[in-house]
Amino acid sequence: MTREVYLDNCATTKAIPQVVAAMVECLERYYGNPSSLHRLGLEAEKKVAQARRQIAQALGCNPKELIFTSGGSESNNLAIKGATRFYRSRGNHIITAKTEHPSVLAAYESLEKEGFQVTYLDVSNTGHICLEQLGDSMTAATTLVSLMMINNELGTVQPVEKAVTIVREKAVKNKVCFHVDGVQAVGMMPVNLGKLGIDLYSFSGHKFHGPKGIGGLYIKPGIQLQPIIEGGGQEGGLRSGTENVPGIVGMAKAISLVTAGMEEKISRLRRLQQQLWQGITKEIPGCKLNSDLEQGAPHIVSISFPWVKGEVLLHYLESEGIYVSTGSACSSRSRNISHVLAGIGLNEAEADGTIRFSFGGDTIEDDIHYAVNKTVTGVKELKQVMGR
Amino acid sequence: MTREVYLDNCATTKAIPQVVAAMVECLERYYGNPSSLHRLGLEAEKKVAQARRQIAQALGCNPKELIFTSGGSESNNLAIKGATRFYRSRGNHIITAKTEHPSVLAAYESLEKEGFQVTYLDVSNTGHICLEQLGDSMTAATTLVSLMMINNELGTVQPVEKAVTIVREKAVKNKVCFHVDGVQAVGMMPVNLGKLGIDLYSFSGHKFHGPKGIGGLYIKPGIQLQPIIEGGGQEGGLRSGTENVPGIVGMAKAISLVTAGMEEKISRLRRLQQQLWQGITKEIPGCKLNSDLEQGAPHIVSISFPWVKGEVLLHYLESEGIYVSTGSACSSRSRNISHVLAGIGLNEAEADGTIRFSFGGDTIEDDIHYAVNKTVTGVKELKQVMGR
Repeated sequence: MTREVYLDNCATTKAIPQVVAAMVECLERYYGNPSSLHRLGLEAEKKVAQARRQIAQALGCNPKELIFTSGGSESNNLAIKGATRFYRSRGNHIITAKTEHPSVLAAYESLEKEGFQVTYLDVSNTGHICLEQLGDSMTAATTLVSLMMINNELGTVQPVEKAVTIVREKAVKNKVCFHVDGVQAVGMMPVNLGKLGIDLYSFSGHKFHGPKGIGGLYIKPGIQLQPIIEGGGQEGGLRSGTENVPGIVGMAKAISLVTAGMEEKISRLRRLQQQLWQGITKEIPGCKLNSDLEQGAPHIVSISFPWVKGEVLLHYLESEGIYVSTGSACSSRSRNISHVLAGIGLNEAEADGTIRFSFGGDTIEDDIHYAVNKTVTGVKELKQVMGR
Repeated sequence: MTREVYLDNCATTKAIPQVVAAMVECLERYYGNPSSLHRLGLEAEKKVAQARRQIAQALGCNPKELIFTSGGSESNNLAIKGATRFYRSRGNHIITAKTEHPSVLAAYESLEKEGFQVTYLDVSNTGHICLEQLGDSMTAATTLVSLMMINNELGTVQPVEKAVTIVREKAVKNKVCFHVDGVQAVGMMPVNLGKLGIDLYSFSGHKFHGPKGIGGLYIKPGIQLQPIIEGGGQEGGLRSGTENVPGIVGMAKAISLVTAGMEEKISRLRRLQQQLWQGITKEIPGCKLNSDLEQGAPHIVSISFPWVKGEVLLHYLESEGIYVSTGSACSSRSRNISHVLAGIGLNEAEADGTIRFSFGGDTIEDDIHYAVNKTVTGVKELKQVMGR
C-alpha cells in the first residue's frame, strides 16, 4: 500500500478523533434546538455556551464577543459587508491588500459595485504590505481596513499590530473598523484578540482540525454590523439560524487541542519546514523558496520549480500518496495564475511551477522525509520529460 | 428512569443513525477539500456530487438546480434578498404572508428598508392565505412572491400550486420569482419541484433527521440571484465557502431515508394525530385544535388550552420526559405572542395556552399514548392550580 502523506492542510485538515467523538455525542444526545425551552434545548444551549467559552479562552477574548457562522467565507463577508454597510454614513472608502483570500476580495468587489471606493494595497516580493502605503491610503472617508494574518499561499505574516497602530493614528476620531482574516492563523501562531486591538477577526473550524461548515467571528464590543442572514435572532441578531451544535462543539474541541502546547508544535513545524526546504534545494538547485521560514507561518512552504508544471508535479506526488496544492485550493479549479503569486512578482514559469506544502498538527518528520524524496525524484524526472 | 418522548420535531429532529455514520465516514475518510486537485479532493467532490443527485431525486429536480447552504435561514435569505436585489430593475414590489418563518419576514423587512414595497398577505383562521388577495396584490412592479409550504406552528399547507397559477397569470411577462420555504415539508408531503412550477425552494437538513448547519436551495434554470456569501466561487458562484462535505452527505442520506415509503409514514402519522387529538379532547373538552388534521401537515398538532399558560404546561410535560413547544422554537425565547397564532386570530389566553406537538419519523403510538395521559393530567392539575 502506498504511504499517504497529507500536506494540503491549508486547503482543509482532517478532524481530530476527539473532535469527531464530540460531534457524534451532540448528534446522538444533545440534539435539541438551543432555542427550545425544554431540557433538551437547554442542554444544547449549554453545550454551545461551553464551546463559546473554550474558543474565547483560546483566542484571548470574551465569550460574548464571539458569534458562530458557517465558516471563514461567511465570517469574512459578514465582517466586511456588515461593517461597511452599517457605517456607510461615516464614509465610503475601504482598504485591503491585493493578496487577500478570494472571500475578502469578492466582498470588496461587491462593495465597489455598491459605490464604495477601494484601495488595494500592493505587496512586496515577500508578500508583505507596505505600512507607509497603508498610512498614505487612509482618508477621512475610510471606514474599514481588512488584512489577513497569515497568507494562505505563502505563509506571509502581515504586520497586523503595526498596521493597527497606523490605522488608529491616522483615523479621524478613531472610527475605522479593523478586520483580520485569521483563518490560517488559529493554532499556528499565538493570538490574543484582547490585546491585538482589532475590531473583527474571522476563523474557520476545518482549517484547524475541526469540522467543515462552521466558523466564527470575533466582534469587539461597540462594533456594529448589518447582518446578512436574518431571522430568528440567534447570535445576538447578527447571525440567525438554528445553531450548528455539533459543528460548534467540534470546533471548540479542536481549538482547545490545537492551541494547547502550541509553542512546542510551532518549533517542531519550523524544523520540518527546514527539513523540507533544505532537502529539496540541496538536490534541486535553482528552485525558489516563496515562504519566509523564520518570520512566516510555521506550516507553509511554497516552492517554485520553474521547469515543471505545478499541476503535473502535483499529480506525480499524488501517485506517490502525497497531497499538496498548486495555488490555493480555493481557486485551484480556476486554473488561472494565482493572484497571490502574481502579487509577489513571480514570472509565469515560476508561478506555474509552484507547489504549496502545508503541514498540520499531525505532520511528522517521516512524512517530510518521504515528501522530500518523492519531490526530488519527481522534479528531476519531469524536468527531463518536459525538456525545460 | 423517566420515559423520553420527543415531540418537538418542528424545532429540530434527532439525526438518524445512518446519517451520523455517513457523516463520520466523511470526517474520517473523505476529509479533502472538494476544490483540491488531488485524489482526496476529487473523492470529496464525488461525495458531494452523489449527495446532490440523491437530494435531486428526492425532490424531483435536476442536481444542477440545487445549491448547498448552511440551513433554512440562509436559504430563505439568499432566495429572497438574492432574487429581489438581482431583479431590482424590474420592479420594487414583493409579496409574502404574515405567518411566514422569521427568516422570511426578517428578509422582507430588510428589503423594505432598502426601499422595496411589501405586501404582507393576511391569513384565515386556518392559516391559509386568500388567493384572491394574492391576485389583487400583484402589480406590474411585483418581482417576488414567497410562501411557505407548511406552516411550522400550525401545519397549515398553503395552496402553493394554485398560488403559482395565479401569480403566473397576473405576472407581466411571467417574470415574478416564486419562492417556497419548504423547510417543514421535506419528508412530510410529496414534493416534485419539476412539476410544481416554482422558482426557488428552501430546505434544511436538521428538520428531517439530518444534521444541523446544512441546508439547500433549489433554483430553477434561468433564475439569477445576487449572492450574499462570495469568494471562491463554489456552488456556481452563488454560495462560496468550502463545502460542508459531512453535512451535505448526511443531509442526502437523511432525505433518501425520510422520503422512502413516505405515503405509509404519512398515513401512520395521521393516525397518531387523531390519537393525540381525540385522546386529549375527550378528557379536556373546550380545548381548541388549531391544526387541520385532514388537509394539514401530518406531523403537527397545535392545541390551545386557554386555562393554562403554555410555558407552564411545557415544563410540566418536560418533567414527565415529554418535549414540546409553545410557539415556534425559532422565536420561543422572545416570549412574545407568536405572530402566527395572532395571525389566525387567537385571543391572548388561547395564544398563551398553545402547545405544539410535532412528530418525527420515529414517533410511535406508545409515545402518543403516554403524551395524551400526561397532557390530560397536566392540564387538569394546572387548571386547578391556576384557578382559570
